[in-house]
Amino acid sequence: MKTLILAGGVGKSLFPLSREQYPKQFLKFNRYSLFQMAVKRALKITSPMKTYVVTSNSQKFMVLDQLSEINADIELLLEPEPRGTLPAVYFGIKETDAKKVLVMPSDQIIENGEYLKLLRESEGLCKDYLVAFGVKAKEANPNYGYIKPGKAISGGYTIDRFVEKPEDAAALVSEGYLWNTGTYIFNSKLFIEECERFCPDVGMAFEKGVDFAYSALPRLSLDKEIMEKTRRGAVVQMDAAWNDAGSFDAIYELLQKDSNGNAIRGEFISVDSKNNVVIGDRLIATVGLEDTVVVETRDVILVCPRKEATKVREVVKILKGVNDKRIESHVTVYRPWGSYTVLEEGPAYKVKRITVKPGKRLSLQMHYHRSEHWVVVRGTARVTVGDREFILRNGESTFVPAGTKHRLENPGLIPLDIIEAQIGEYIEEDDIVRFDDDFGREKS
Amino acid sequence: MKTLILAGGVGKSLFPLSREQYPKQFLKFNRYSLFQMAVKRALKITSPMKTYVVTSNSQKFMVLDQLSEINADIELLLEPEPRGTLPAVYFGIKETDAKKVLVMPSDQIIENGEYLKLLRESEGLCKDYLVAFGVKAKEANPNYGYIKPGKAISGGYTIDRFVEKPEDAAALVSEGYLWNTGTYIFNSKLFIEECERFCPDVGMAFEKGVDFAYSALPRLSLDKEIMEKTRRGAVVQMDAAWNDAGSFDAIYELLQKDSNGNAIRGEFISVDSKNNVVIGDRLIATVGLEDTVVVETRDVILVCPRKEATKVREVVKILKGVNDKRIESHVTVYRPWGSYTVLEEGPAYKVKRITVKPGKRLSLQMHYHRSEHWVVVRGTARVTVGDREFILRNGESTFVPAGTKHRLENPGLIPLDIIEAQIGEYIEEDDIVRFDDDFGREKS
Repeated sequence: MKTLILAGGVGKSLFPLSREQYPKQFLKFNRYSLFQMAVKRALKITSPMKTYVVTSNSQKFMVLDQLSEINADIELLLEPEPRGTLPAVYFGIKETDAKKVLVMPSDQIIENGEYLKLLRESEGLCKDYLVAFGVKAKEANPNYGYIKPGKAISGGYTIDRFVEKPEDAAALVSEGYLWNTGTYIFNSKLFIEECERFCPDVGMAFEKGVDFAYSALPRLSLDKEIMEKTRRGAVVQMDAAWNDAGSFDAIYELLQKDSNGNAIRGEFISVDSKNNVVIGDRLIATVGLEDTVVVETRDVILVCPRKEATKVREVVKILKGVNDKRIESHVTVYRPWGSYTVLEEGPAYKVKRITVKPGKRLSLQMHYHRSEHWVVVRGTARVTVGDREFILRNGESTFVPAGTKHRLENPGLIPLDIIEAQIGEYIEEDDIVRFDDDFGREKS
Repeated sequence: MKTLILAGGVGKSLFPLSREQYPKQFLKFNRYSLFQMAVKRALKITSPMKTYVVTSNSQKFMVLDQLSEINADIELLLEPEPRGTLPAVYFGIKETDAKKVLVMPSDQIIENGEYLKLLRESEGLCKDYLVAFGVKAKEANPNYGYIKPGKAISGGYTIDRFVEKPEDAAALVSEGYLWNTGTYIFNSKLFIEECERFCPDVGMAFEKGVDFAYSALPRLSLDKEIMEKTRRGAVVQMDAAWNDAGSFDAIYELLQKDSNGNAIRGEFISVDSKNNVVIGDRLIATVGLEDTVVVETRDVILVCPRKEATKVREVVKILKGVNDKRIESHVTVYRPWGSYTVLEEGPAYKVKRITVKPGKRLSLQMHYHRSEHWVVVRGTARVTVGDREFILRNGESTFVPAGTKHRLENPGLIPLDIIEAQIGEYIEEDDIVRFDDDFGREKS
């Protein structure tokens, strides 16, 4: 059996902490991100050789960073772009040529409990069934998938009914439905048969190649397209504590609380405040506030009652409607070579902090409309300006005139921080001409 | 009659918008600040020659800036430091040698109504009375002063009882008490007699000179020390809409509302939110939020239910207890020559945007522990580094090594903006040696 960790998701539910280019599975609420916790679970089931991360190019380097943080050396399967769970699993099966796959989401919280043991024991079941894993539904959450267990079979139950995001969640809870955890074990042959039955386009599209498939296919949900329709589903019930981390209210459960029940990340002053979620980089003060979510980032602040937290996606929808770039990325933008943070933007200037990882470099580039002043505030830079290449040390600076080829590189062993002041009549990111495509590759 | 506009107050009630060095009377919720509105009212009563602002040195340049914005050329009376309303009025009377004074607070909201007419008509009353001005008490606000009108006299009433911040506010409202607006008309002789009777220290301290008085005297409230005790008080009732701007809930009344009753300053996205106060520089998004205050500044965010807003001072108390500098000033610090904003602080560096007003300059100075890189992003600078003096234009930069005398000056006609990157093992503001004391004076 091979494990496919699905890490292509683009979460909207934890905005403004999560952005399109920084989905919730990479957020760290505790020591490890949800993604890292999923990888650690997976590696208890399958060896690194048989464990894969299915993600997209845009998230490649974030996945690599977080894997290296936990010293997990596993292979990436890169989708051209995220297109939902069905193409992701289909793609994973094709690329790994697996006979059996364990499909594991990377954006959920699972307190192990008997989870791992059950996964191992349930592998046999997938010979005749598409095997889902459920936990007892505890409240009427309309955003979850619900499974009605049918007749008992060895190690689980057949599936009588499988329904995503039902309108009558409350009724289903009382009828003893299970929540779908999004974890599956498939035998690939059976999975592909069911795809051909219920979603033939997928197979045909992949016949013509991966790139064709991803350009031709809409977003497709494994749950909706296959699991809701198949008659060959089975469910294994487990009693692990499960949480889809789908709202700040769900995150509240995950975080440590102070004596007043406030879940805090960052600097917080509380006057008569209880049971709040308070997450920020700057000082957040609350007075007489209860059961409320306060999340602040450098560019967006969110405030909402915890019970309304699932509606946060409405804010994202509104911003998307006006094509607001803030849903795409943070003020800090992560790149394969490091990151940059816009500290200030004026009418004809922009100030950035640029951090370059040891051994990384930016592409050789040029801007028509802006000149750049660089001041090294940490580490050592190798700089190319025109045909000169030289070293800049902490406290030194240089000037890059508009229209001049330049490159920034960190030849050292510690991160390089520079302050960049851009000046010009046009200072947008798209004023850039790149002269090589070794964007962020190791220099060597 | 001369008018004393009291502008020495240090408001804690509108933190984090107001700070010790940026009190609430200078905040602009609409086109004009509370202070500017007070000046405009005063100038309808007395001529500029007979109108004075009583303030302290620390607020001098802010007062001058806001006066010049409204082209009000009136004299400042500078207290060595703010010490409450009693010393301020006593000081004002001494300095102006006035026979009669109109005392006007600068941190309140008054919709004119018959206010000005009444003030003019009530001047005569001050021959025999310390004349206060009251409005009908509308609700049991424990932070206000309450006045019980006694027997009718021409143009007003004697004062039966005057009580600041009563515990039984509700009872007083039902008994028809008036709120004390803090506006007074005094005949100086009578005022000083009452001071000698109830607070003799004040007169004696001022006998020994202003500096002695301000070092010797505690904070003294005119209302508590004199008006609560005197038997020679009169009150004139007016029906002007009055608001002490003492909380964000009070400010709510002042601000324009959207169709959902949200009072907004800044960029706001509302999902099912109503009747909130939302003030910020960055995007604030609320979901299902009601009757709540959300105020964000570059360094502090405040969230509290509107009805709790008067408790915001508790936050200030907590920060003062740990000697937190954020209660003193904003990330943007205002100086006579302009302002600076800390954009980013790192372990051994600090990045600032420095704005110098046309014709202003900083003192000639030197730092032992840090070097400074300056990049001009707007305007033109005259720079002194060591014994060199030269011009820097938009887009140009220079370097000031540690231990080198330097000066920054704006010789031009538009504001000068520079980005300053400080680098050194110690980058606090107190590493500065000044070589002249023409701090911020007009160059000429």
